[in-house]
Amino acid sequence: MSFQIQPTKVIHHLHDRTQSLMHIDLLITNTTILPFPDTEQVIAKGFVAITGTLISTVGPMSACPPTADATVISGAGQLVMPGLVNGHCHAPMTLFRGLADDLDLHTWLQTHIFPAEARQVNPEMVYWCSKLAAAEMLLSGTTTVADGYFLEDEVARACVETGIRCVAAQAVLDFPAPGVPDPAQNIKVAARFLEHWQGRDPLITPGIFAHSAYTCSNTTLQQAKELTRYHQAPLFIHVAETRDEGRHIAEPQASTPIGHLQALHLLDPDTICVHCTWATDSDLVDLTAHGCAVVTCPQSNAKLASGRMPLSAMLQQRVRLALGTDSAASNNSLDIFREMDFAAKVHKVTPCDPAAAPAGTLLHMATAGGAEALGLQNGHGTLAPGAPADLILLDLQQPHTQPFHGPRLLVYSQAGSSVRTVIVNGRIVVYDRQLRTIDLDATCDRVRTLAAG
Amino acid sequence: MSFQIQPTKVIHHLHDRTQSLMHIDLLITNTTILPFPDTEQVIAKGFVAITGTLISTVGPMSACPPTADATVISGAGQLVMPGLVNGHCHAPMTLFRGLADDLDLHTWLQTHIFPAEARQVNPEMVYWCSKLAAAEMLLSGTTTVADGYFLEDEVARACVETGIRCVAAQAVLDFPAPGVPDPAQNIKVAARFLEHWQGRDPLITPGIFAHSAYTCSNTTLQQAKELTRYHQAPLFIHVAETRDEGRHIAEPQASTPIGHLQALHLLDPDTICVHCTWATDSDLVDLTAHGCAVVTCPQSNAKLASGRMPLSAMLQQRVRLALGTDSAASNNSLDIFREMDFAAKVHKVTPCDPAAAPAGTLLHMATAGGAEALGLQNGHGTLAPGAPADLILLDLQQPHTQPFHGPRLLVYSQAGSSVRTVIVNGRIVVYDRQLRTIDLDATCDRVRTLAAG
Repeated sequence: MSFQIQPTKVIHHLHDRTQSLMHIDLLITNTTILPFPDTEQVIAKGFVAITGTLISTVGPMSACPPTADATVISGAGQLVMPGLVNGHCHAPMTLFRGLADDLDLHTWLQTHIFPAEARQVNPEMVYWCSKLAAAEMLLSGTTTVADGYFLEDEVARACVETGIRCVAAQAVLDFPAPGVPDPAQNIKVAARFLEHWQGRDPLITPGIFAHSAYTCSNTTLQQAKELTRYHQAPLFIHVAETRDEGRHIAEPQASTPIGHLQALHLLDPDTICVHCTWATDSDLVDLTAHGCAVVTCPQSNAKLASGRMPLSAMLQQRVRLALGTDSAASNNSLDIFREMDFAAKVHKVTPCDPAAAPAGTLLHMATAGGAEALGLQNGHGTLAPGAPADLILLDLQQPHTQPFHGPRLLVYSQAGSSVRTVIVNGRIVVYDRQLRTIDLDATCDRVRTLAAG
Repeated sequence: MSFQIQPTKVIHHLHDRTQSLMHIDLLITNTTILPFPDTEQVIAKGFVAITGTLISTVGPMSACPPTADATVISGAGQLVMPGLVNGHCHAPMTLFRGLADDLDLHTWLQTHIFPAEARQVNPEMVYWCSKLAAAEMLLSGTTTVADGYFLEDEVARACVETGIRCVAAQAVLDFPAPGVPDPAQNIKVAARFLEHWQGRDPLITPGIFAHSAYTCSNTTLQQAKELTRYHQAPLFIHVAETRDEGRHIAEPQASTPIGHLQALHLLDPDTICVHCTWATDSDLVDLTAHGCAVVTCPQSNAKLASGRMPLSAMLQQRVRLALGTDSAASNNSLDIFREMDFAAKVHKVTPCDPAAAPAGTLLHMATAGGAEALGLQNGHGTLAPGAPADLILLDLQQPHTQPFHGPRLLVYSQAGSSVRTVIVNGRIVVYDRQLRTIDLDATCDRVRTLAAG
């Protein structure tokens, strides 16, 4: 615990004439560092150097390189770690936060959410509510989100503007939907989305979100998979979210929803199965055999009383796992710190096993593990040299973070509100809790107006 | 949603020469008000008037009385509600936050906590760590805490200084303990504590905390109850926390730990049973028949994998219920907003019942219900005229609180970090997130030094 307790909250430029061996654009100094969050290893007083959009070096202050014209941030009294990864979100649904609660998934969707969506979803709503969601996520330490919704172009545009990294997936289902009034056009619209966004912006990885096997025909599912295979893009799908999901699949090809996807040849390493709350043992074998990733959304699953994913079995089978919030309408927060805490506890309580979901496992799922599950490579979710410079600085000097006995604090005591500074792709998007990219007050005003309307 | 969105963050004095019908010391204006948190009824734009230490009036702005020399706080863009009640805490154990995690109660206590307590607990540690805990609680919206520990005089002193209301209970058990090296003196020490604090300070209600039936002999338990009966003081006890607790009771008088307390005539309306995780149906009948209160600590119970209290059955039996964090060493946070959110979700997920723990129930347990369970009367935990002026102002303008569809937001989206202003017993103890009573930096420094030592 050698970190300093007086933060110097000033960004200043060093005009150091010393010749540096490596160009550094941004340097964070005198800070506690957790380079690989699944470990408990911290550098008590170190530096992080960023060159362009990548981490260039991390080490103890004694090895801090000389810098010329670098922007320097003092990290004293703070902890630097990789930004968090939210593996599943529907950003625009932030409009429906708290609209209806304490209901099961079916009633909640049919009686409240679908009617509200029919009334209120349009490009303007998707754009503004996604900006609000991106702001909430950045301000709580999330630097990458996987989103799936309709009119996803507007989500991607909002994310680029706000400065959050996004695996943006255009939704596909066999009903008239916002932006796709004719469901026969759903694959065509999705294809246009992929073509438009592939390689367009470093923050955006486009994909497809096939809503579920109970809203998509077998043909639609297969076309969606074919399209993403062609583009080497990720395919997201809600699956095995509720106990009786199988009963709602029109032409089931197997006895379980995951088995159904397997029978349709949908499972492979680029298929990201969301929820899997009711995955059976044989489903786990399928998921592992095909190298699928799974995103669990424990708070949303709990609040909608859908169930609890078999995390221990998934870990044992080494399924690739990410952690997601789901939307603010079913969670009702987009704070991955809360999600880690909840997940760590909910998975201990029912089996009465305190080691069932260790803090390190959750930290891994919320950083490097989650990034890998989403198909993001090159050390994403770590502070390894060469990794994308997506990182956060957390205040360690608040009452609820005292004393600091180690990184498990990040799971059990920390909250998104402790995030001071956020860097995405080498760019400072939040500094001293101020979002620097968009006008937050105007965004909040706009969303309030949309909610009232 | 008629509340204003531009807060005027200035306390100013009105020098209104209008004759007022009632003297008002403190007036909160132009604010959204939730006077009775178990309801969803808000006053969209209202005022709260405080006279001395009590709420005097609450109503819409149109009925706002003229004031002379009152301190006026603008509550624009904020929500006013009663301060939260933390029904169970061990404030000094904040020193051990994150010291050991992901362990069961027995291993955690025997291998980590008891040795650390033997080394580190002394009056100085209890005093400073209690100040830190009180600061954390006030800054997250808790205005009343029920605490139980050794050297509880120091806890009470720290609470008075920090300005939080405390039901402070001196711990009793049959082992040498900090401040009570000879266990034969435990009841005498507890008696002195009660005598010293009864009627001494408006913020302190003294009580006894008999640790448990597995650390106290039957005689000690009965003496503790006799003492609290004599003083009309509350008696707290950990009971039925883990599945096998009964096996550790030396001379069991019944087949369950709660039955054991009943057989010893310990159960009555002033006995507050903490945890009751493994309460059986017949235990519930006992608890109800004797009018006992129960404090549940769902996050601590989950993290230590002790289990999940039968909340639905308790609600059905109309057991008097409070919500507690337990200590920062087992939670690891003292934020009752987090506790409400966790409780609401964990009780839905296992029975797959989304209505099992509605938001309103949690809001009640964390305010008026919790206060009543602790024996606090006179509208405590509500904003009824005549109730103690213990209330909080919450920021409704942050991204994670947008849009505001109603008070369920307080359970599912809010966090302690949104607390802007805290009033306890008519005194402003936190204003614009600044604690006005103690030097917080010095307190944090002191606790860090204690942790390092």
